[in-house]
Amino acid sequence: MQKLLMILIDENDTFGDLSLYEAICRRLIELGAPGVTVMTGIMGFGANQKIHRKRLFGVPDDRPVSIMVVDDEQELRGKILPVVRPMVTEGLVFLADVEVIPPVAGQ
Amino acid sequence: MQKLLMILIDENDTFGDLSLYEAICRRLIELGAPGVTVMTGIMGFGANQKIHRKRLFGVPDDRPVSIMVVDDEQELRGKILPVVRPMVTEGLVFLADVEVIPPVAGQ
Amino acid sequence: MQKLLMILIDENDTFGDLSLYEAICRRLIELGAPGVTVMTGIMGFGANQKIHRKRLFGVPDDRPVSIMVVDDEQELRGKILPVVRPMVTEGLVFLADVEVIPPVAGQ
Repeated sequence: MQKLLMILIDENDTFGDLSLYEAICRRLIELGAPGVTVMTGIMGFGANQKIHRKRLFGVPDDRPVSIMVVDDEQELRGKILPVVRPMVTEGLVFLADVEVIPPVAGQ
Repeated sequence: MQKLLMILIDENDTFGDLSLYEAICRRLIELGAPGVTVMTGIMGFGANQKIHRKRLFGVPDDRPVSIMVVDDEQELRGKILPVVRPMVTEGLVFLADVEVIPPVAGQ
Repeated sequence: MQKLLMILIDENDTFGDLSLYEAICRRLIELGAPGVTVMTGIMGFGANQKIHRKRLFGVPDDRPVSIMVVDDEQELRGKILPVVRPMVTEGLVFLADVEVIPPVAGQ
C-alpha cells in the first residue's frame, strides 16, 4: 500500500552544516525515495506558543517547509522513517493513505 | 485519533480589518492549536467559474492560501471547527485521516 | 464520497504550447471541477536519480508544482482522471479520502 509521508519543519532548522530540509532531501535520495516535493509556506507556528506569535507577526524569514514523499508503506516504515524521523527534533511527521493512479496503458 | 484540517481560501479574502488567513491563524493560536502551516499557491479558482478564468489568466495577486492544522479529532471538531468554519464563507474546509509519527524514544 | 486529487509535476513540464500545469487547469475548468489550487515548491526530484541531484542542487528554476482538486469520487474517476491522467507522463497522481466540512447552516 502506498502512503504519503509529510514532514513539516521550519526553513531555518539546521542539521549539522546544512539546512534540515536539504539534509532530509539528501538522505531521501540516498535511501532511494522515488520522489520528493519540498514547498515553503508564508507563516507557521509549532510547539512553542511564544515563538508562534513572534514568528507569526514578526519574523517573516522563518517560513514553514513541507516535504512530501509517496512510497510503499513498508519502504517508508522500514527504511525511510528510521533514518529521517530522528532528524526532526521539532516539527511534525505524519503518514496518510493515498491511492496512486498509475499511468494509462501504453503511456 | 489525529486528523489533518485543511482550509483553502484566497489570499485577498478578508475578515474584518484582517486578511482572513491571518484572522484564522490568530484564532487558531487562541484556541490552542498545536501548530499551523500556511502556504500560498500560484493560481486557483473556486466557486464562480467567471472569477476562475479571470483569476487564472488575469489576476496574479489573488493567490490561493492553504492552512493546515494537525490535531486530535475531538479538538478539531469540538473546539476549532465551530469557531473557524463560520469564518470561511467561500472556500473549502476538509479533514483527512493522518497517522502522526512520534519522535523516537530518547529524542 | 469526496476525494482529494493531487497531481505533482514540474513547473517546466509542457503540454503542447502551454505549461502542463496551466493546460491541466484549463481542462479542469472545462470539465467543471469545483475548484483548483496550484502551488509551487522550492525543490523536488522525480523518476530519474541523475536529474534529481541536478535539480536539487543545481537548477533552481525547475520547481515542483502541486495541483489539488476536491470533488466527488465518481466525478474524479469518471470524468476528470480519464482526461487529466494521460496528460501527466512524468509525475505523480494520487487520490486521498477527505471529509468536506460544509458551511454552517444559515451561512
